[in-house]
Amino acid sequence: MDREVINSSVPSHWYNLNADFPEPLPPALHPGTREPLGPEDLAPLFPMALIMQEVSTERYIEIPDEVRSIYAKWRPSPLLRARRLEQALGTEARIYYKYEGVSPAGSHKPNTAIPQAWYNREEGITRLTTETGAGQWGASLALACALLGMTCEVWQVRSSYDSKPYRRQQMEVYGSACHPSPSDLTESGRAMLAKDPDTPGSLGMAISEAVEVAANDPQAHYSLGSVLNHVMLHQSVIGQELLVQLETAGEAQADMVFGCVGGGSNLGGLSFPLIGQNLREGTTTEVVACEPSACPTITEGEYRYDFGDVAGLTPLLKMHTLGSDFVPPPIHAGGLRYHGMAPMVSHAVNLGLMSAIAVDQDDAFAAGVQFARTEGIIPAPESTHAVAGAVEYAKRAAADEVIVIGLSGNGVLDLPAYQGYTG
Amino acid sequence: MDREVINSSVPSHWYNLNADFPEPLPPALHPGTREPLGPEDLAPLFPMALIMQEVSTERYIEIPDEVRSIYAKWRPSPLLRARRLEQALGTEARIYYKYEGVSPAGSHKPNTAIPQAWYNREEGITRLTTETGAGQWGASLALACALLGMTCEVWQVRSSYDSKPYRRQQMEVYGSACHPSPSDLTESGRAMLAKDPDTPGSLGMAISEAVEVAANDPQAHYSLGSVLNHVMLHQSVIGQELLVQLETAGEAQADMVFGCVGGGSNLGGLSFPLIGQNLREGTTTEVVACEPSACPTITEGEYRYDFGDVAGLTPLLKMHTLGSDFVPPPIHAGGLRYHGMAPMVSHAVNLGLMSAIAVDQDDAFAAGVQFARTEGIIPAPESTHAVAGAVEYAKRAAADEVIVIGLSGNGVLDLPAYQGYTG
Repeated sequence: MDREVINSSVPSHWYNLNADFPEPLPPALHPGTREPLGPEDLAPLFPMALIMQEVSTERYIEIPDEVRSIYAKWRPSPLLRARRLEQALGTEARIYYKYEGVSPAGSHKPNTAIPQAWYNREEGITRLTTETGAGQWGASLALACALLGMTCEVWQVRSSYDSKPYRRQQMEVYGSACHPSPSDLTESGRAMLAKDPDTPGSLGMAISEAVEVAANDPQAHYSLGSVLNHVMLHQSVIGQELLVQLETAGEAQADMVFGCVGGGSNLGGLSFPLIGQNLREGTTTEVVACEPSACPTITEGEYRYDFGDVAGLTPLLKMHTLGSDFVPPPIHAGGLRYHGMAPMVSHAVNLGLMSAIAVDQDDAFAAGVQFARTEGIIPAPESTHAVAGAVEYAKRAAADEVIVIGLSGNGVLDLPAYQGYTG
Repeated sequence: MDREVINSSVPSHWYNLNADFPEPLPPALHPGTREPLGPEDLAPLFPMALIMQEVSTERYIEIPDEVRSIYAKWRPSPLLRARRLEQALGTEARIYYKYEGVSPAGSHKPNTAIPQAWYNREEGITRLTTETGAGQWGASLALACALLGMTCEVWQVRSSYDSKPYRRQQMEVYGSACHPSPSDLTESGRAMLAKDPDTPGSLGMAISEAVEVAANDPQAHYSLGSVLNHVMLHQSVIGQELLVQLETAGEAQADMVFGCVGGGSNLGGLSFPLIGQNLREGTTTEVVACEPSACPTITEGEYRYDFGDVAGLTPLLKMHTLGSDFVPPPIHAGGLRYHGMAPMVSHAVNLGLMSAIAVDQDDAFAAGVQFARTEGIIPAPESTHAVAGAVEYAKRAAADEVIVIGLSGNGVLDLPAYQGYTG
């Protein structure tokens, strides 16, 4: 009988696409001087090891033993053959999915939360702060801090804090504090509340609160769950495993890879090792970024320097952007509601190393329901965008094409989002 | 570096402890005649293949290929070493946990839902009905029916239907219908509603509705998620895998196994292959059933013939029972709130092949929080009872003892239950 799960071992190194880009990545700029950022500009918020990873052009960076031993609690994440989906679609292409929902937090986010917490602890930091929207990132950092004996404080956008209690409760089980943002615990929060006591909050405001607390406590640092180069690096465990698993499955290469993109960390982690192989060894894997048509950062945005936040306090990043004041509509795939894109993903698109499509929410959920009923796993709303891209492609794929879906997480805590799509 | 996950392959056969019991299992009796049940008594509700498994004394029964290929989507479930928990406890015993929460439904229930649906479909049945409380079993049968192209109709106790929408939405994503019970769709439901239109419902009433619908439709059968012998058989994949995984890990045997018990299917599945090995090969694995002190079926109940339901309509089963009219208090571990116990588990206890302890809810959640903060996985409220039993034992265990925890599921959809225990 076929083994449907193809395993490998946990990679020993992360892969860094900055070693193989045919042109170097445009640097981040200081928001005041517009000069390239130096390490000292980031030192108040991040440990030096992560700052060095942020600017590194080394191809492989060793994963610390303790980080690997925690990864090994759920990694390698399984690569599964989607035979029942193939049958339902009547395709002769072979469809696989790389499933990150097996992590204790239910998504790919712990892949970077664990090393971020670890490098901070190595440099004497005992407390991390961050912001979270729906809560996937907050829960992942809370998990990392629990396992590494650190404390974690999360500012969650008030509207999510009130309407989605499960993720907050998850953070609390892990021993973290979760505050609704804006809160009366910070200067910026108090100012916001004075202006509008009933504000539902925003990710931009939550960032300001988390950064303020970290900047004022020498034992604390701030942690970011996507966009930055060191986050793409940590997520490369996904694609590193995928390369080995495809070989184990007897596939010469993935012909098409579909992943969802919000900030870009899941798709970057999944695809960069394969793009690197294209550049070094001449494989011809095509990578398709699947973004929501309600927030079409790559397909409709401009490629230029822009701020990462609404207030214009972050460094300037060269990226695809809808403008830092763009407010995406409240789609269910909260993790894809970001005006910008990871600079490394944007650079890869700009160099023609990957392409992008926009997917309507209705099509995404229809594909998610079909996937659940054939493969059994209910995809996260974010991941349904990748499923929809792959399903649409598979209908016209040639026989023997190899299609890989990046299934970034499960939708167990997003089940209410499926209502209206299950008929 | 140590691999923390110990894998094996999917077993080819289920194991049946009825082949190795030193005394035969007392038979189920007809509720009217009090004579042993014949296959024809069960034929209106169950397919003949499952009825034959119910009375089989064959030691190994082959798992059908299609069932194995579905199992292979998440099985073998991982056996993990709990090194961080060991360190936190300061024990020199080695603690492992067998984690069933990796299934798409988040628990061990699909292990029997899949074959039950499959054997029904083989005999021409296209529709299954069942009852569910909190929803784990309903969601698992809905998953099985989606994968096997059948329809599924679930009656969920009204109070859970109203207060816990996630499991219902999970069933709906899988294409099943989920009705609050009592409903106006059945005679028994209408009678109940006429008596008390505002009733919160009960498992007993939901069983009556599901059985009534199945009995009146020649295309339909009824499906039960625990207690019966064929359910114990299907769940034996857990223990079959465990035996191989322990050997792979270099352990001669499990010295102590802790599993939670409600109806008994998780503990039976986990431990019966090990008890069989004790009986045949002289290993000395001790098995401890961990039940909630609020529903102490084994530790406080009588071992006698009793009904499975409140109304006294089911066959009489020889089991540990608190009385079929016992109403357990509303503890969080809804899956452990049952007045009776699987006859095979009761027989094993009565023969001295396993023992039982009662665990307070407070101690269970305290152990669950410690487990989450050391191992990363948030256990289901049911599973926390097994964790508590193991943690308490580990504190006084000898060095080199091998302790195995049956982690029957994750607590992602039970996070509100943890409130008040996270301080």
